[in-house]
Amino acid sequence: MTGGARAVARCDALGVAPYSDMEGGLFRAWLTLAFAAAHDAVGGWMAEAGMAVRTDTATNLIGRYEGIAPDAPALLIGSHIDSVNDAGRYDGPLGVMLGIECVAALNAAGKRLPFAIEVVAFGDEEGSRFPAPMLTSRAVAGTFDPASLAVVGRDGVTVGQALTDNRYPPGRFAEAARAPGSVIAYLEAHIEQGPTLEAEGLAVGVVTGIAAQLRYRVVVEGMAGHAGTTSMALRRDALAAAAEAVLAVERIGSAGPDDLVATVGRLDVTPGAVNVIPGHVDFSLDIRALDHAARDAAAKAILAELKTIAARRGVGLVARRVHELSACPCDTKLMDLLAAAMADEGQPARRLASGAGHDAMVMASLCPAAMLFIRCAGGISHNPAEAVKPADVEIALRVMLGFIDKLGETFDA
Amino acid sequence: MTGGARAVARCDALGVAPYSDMEGGLFRAWLTLAFAAAHDAVGGWMAEAGMAVRTDTATNLIGRYEGIAPDAPALLIGSHIDSVNDAGRYDGPLGVMLGIECVAALNAAGKRLPFAIEVVAFGDEEGSRFPAPMLTSRAVAGTFDPASLAVVGRDGVTVGQALTDNRYPPGRFAEAARAPGSVIAYLEAHIEQGPTLEAEGLAVGVVTGIAAQLRYRVVVEGMAGHAGTTSMALRRDALAAAAEAVLAVERIGSAGPDDLVATVGRLDVTPGAVNVIPGHVDFSLDIRALDHAARDAAAKAILAELKTIAARRGVGLVARRVHELSACPCDTKLMDLLAAAMADEGQPARRLASGAGHDAMVMASLCPAAMLFIRCAGGISHNPAEAVKPADVEIALRVMLGFIDKLGETFDA
Repeated sequence: MTGGARAVARCDALGVAPYSDMEGGLFRAWLTLAFAAAHDAVGGWMAEAGMAVRTDTATNLIGRYEGIAPDAPALLIGSHIDSVNDAGRYDGPLGVMLGIECVAALNAAGKRLPFAIEVVAFGDEEGSRFPAPMLTSRAVAGTFDPASLAVVGRDGVTVGQALTDNRYPPGRFAEAARAPGSVIAYLEAHIEQGPTLEAEGLAVGVVTGIAAQLRYRVVVEGMAGHAGTTSMALRRDALAAAAEAVLAVERIGSAGPDDLVATVGRLDVTPGAVNVIPGHVDFSLDIRALDHAARDAAAKAILAELKTIAARRGVGLVARRVHELSACPCDTKLMDLLAAAMADEGQPARRLASGAGHDAMVMASLCPAAMLFIRCAGGISHNPAEAVKPADVEIALRVMLGFIDKLGETFDA
Repeated sequence: MTGGARAVARCDALGVAPYSDMEGGLFRAWLTLAFAAAHDAVGGWMAEAGMAVRTDTATNLIGRYEGIAPDAPALLIGSHIDSVNDAGRYDGPLGVMLGIECVAALNAAGKRLPFAIEVVAFGDEEGSRFPAPMLTSRAVAGTFDPASLAVVGRDGVTVGQALTDNRYPPGRFAEAARAPGSVIAYLEAHIEQGPTLEAEGLAVGVVTGIAAQLRYRVVVEGMAGHAGTTSMALRRDALAAAAEAVLAVERIGSAGPDDLVATVGRLDVTPGAVNVIPGHVDFSLDIRALDHAARDAAAKAILAELKTIAARRGVGLVARRVHELSACPCDTKLMDLLAAAMADEGQPARRLASGAGHDAMVMASLCPAAMLFIRCAGGISHNPAEAVKPADVEIALRVMLGFIDKLGETFDA
């Protein structure tokens, strides 16, 4: 089995119980039993590849492969091992497995570099348990906001409580911050989650940057009532108002540039019974564009339209910004190294932007960061149908090894 | 304390733990811990009022007050003790408590009638745990369909399994059927759940009949995908399609006669994550009108519009009828007795129809049935703000006692 095929097989192995908490599919949220089980498995693979394994205070699993000299600064290679609900198997874990394969190949060849390599499996990227994504990479990058410990998840538990329950002292979470001089660069391999590479017949691509994001939590307050006895004219139906809002989000999202997207992904109706007019709806709004101006214009138009809908229907509506990420360009020098490594493998160095957020954009505030995209079937992601070709993953592995070599050649110790 | 005030106080006592499974509010679904706790409390009150208490094989709690001769056929007085999620305290329990107060008053006066009185606390009226309301009164009326035992609730458990878990053998559920000769009539007191009595300054009203209902379960199948990387043009968003459907339901429901109502009360989004385009939406549709033709015309128009929306958006849509109830007129002779009892109490005998379904319409297939409506604040129901005046409930109690007297006078043993 090639390293690429093994990386894929390991992602597949992590796709079922005990590494998933969902019957018949994959759901591995941060700080769950499935998450803890994944730590055990991935830690074992890291050790087998020749790494010293530890967990930092921010729940990140880290394997370290020393350089020529001990205690050298490190190239971090990583991605996340948490998942969305009913997820695909490769979004996140594939980048971690490729990091492990890089070290396994170096170790098998008895090769050491002027820097150490640390493979990092981040804990919370998706924000699928708490409405607070990328807390764990923020801790490493030194940009963690302790107020996030009070964020309440869908099960009513705070981040701080969940950490305590998993024996991570919340007060020590921020200690995972790396001293800037101890890290020379961050490299993340990830499935594209879009259709571009497949459309152009390419296995891999160099990421130029990551789209700007805004997220809101919107709460609509109508009036619950008996569905049989409250005449249509007297209703203040929170779901009907939210339905208008969902269509406004779709319409305004579709009216901007091609890279603008606007999504209502979560929508919870209370009380949610067949015979009760919904009194309360709580939904998420996610807006992204490569260009800040396009993103902000769409957000402004959507929020204005939501207020108009609420006023016309006599319902309350509050939209609170819960997440904001600036567009994040990747490091030019690292992009060039990746492109050179791709050329060595006979791969055209297609450069493309990412509509999805990644830990790389958080890590970019700590050190130069780069990303390698891998073709995925139909551009499908966040879906059990997510798929990659082992041959593509093998190409990605060779490009990453080439990148490591080239980084070693240019390294100023 | 008057009997009316005590009936209200007991409903209030049942509004909190252990009689509710909801923190800070009332949710007492059928066959839950809260439901079992309510059985204990209500059974105690029945015994205290002078009744012999039993539970039938269909989970109904029954207190019997013998007539002059033992084993006489019975007048059933009842309502349900289950609730919707985040419910008011009086929808259901008040009718049971008034039945208990009737017997308590008769017992205190040492009065027996030519018939027995049985107070029935039905188990499942709201259908809030399983999409199958009124199973327990159907069992008593002898119209229970054993296929309902396979209905799956929101927690993935079937009706049959939940019965077994609560030590009710599912195979014996239908044995709760009463022999027609053993029951002479059914009387149910219930809050109006609408604004008519309040608007006219009346404490109570005689129900003429119950609106016809149709319920559907609608499932929309789109395509889940990453919210950041799937361009708007390539999406098949199940929630956007469902949002159009919700607005179509509201529009068509508003275009018919005043008594036509159409409601989407439950709507579940899968996977339901901030950063995932919804792939699957499952929602309820409830349509009611006093007139079958108006109800059916609205259902036809809504289903046609739903198909059009789905076709235009390229999503799958299946609407399955899960519940149908014909309009149900109340018994003329019993209505007249109630009206006469109201006149004796100085109450105008306002006659009005019910937009809500009640166990009475199921019981009407077993015996003559009647209902007494009690004014509620603002017509609000299925909402924690549900409220009644103890003085109105006292009037209802006197009307019921008068009705019992008059029924005794006319009774052909």
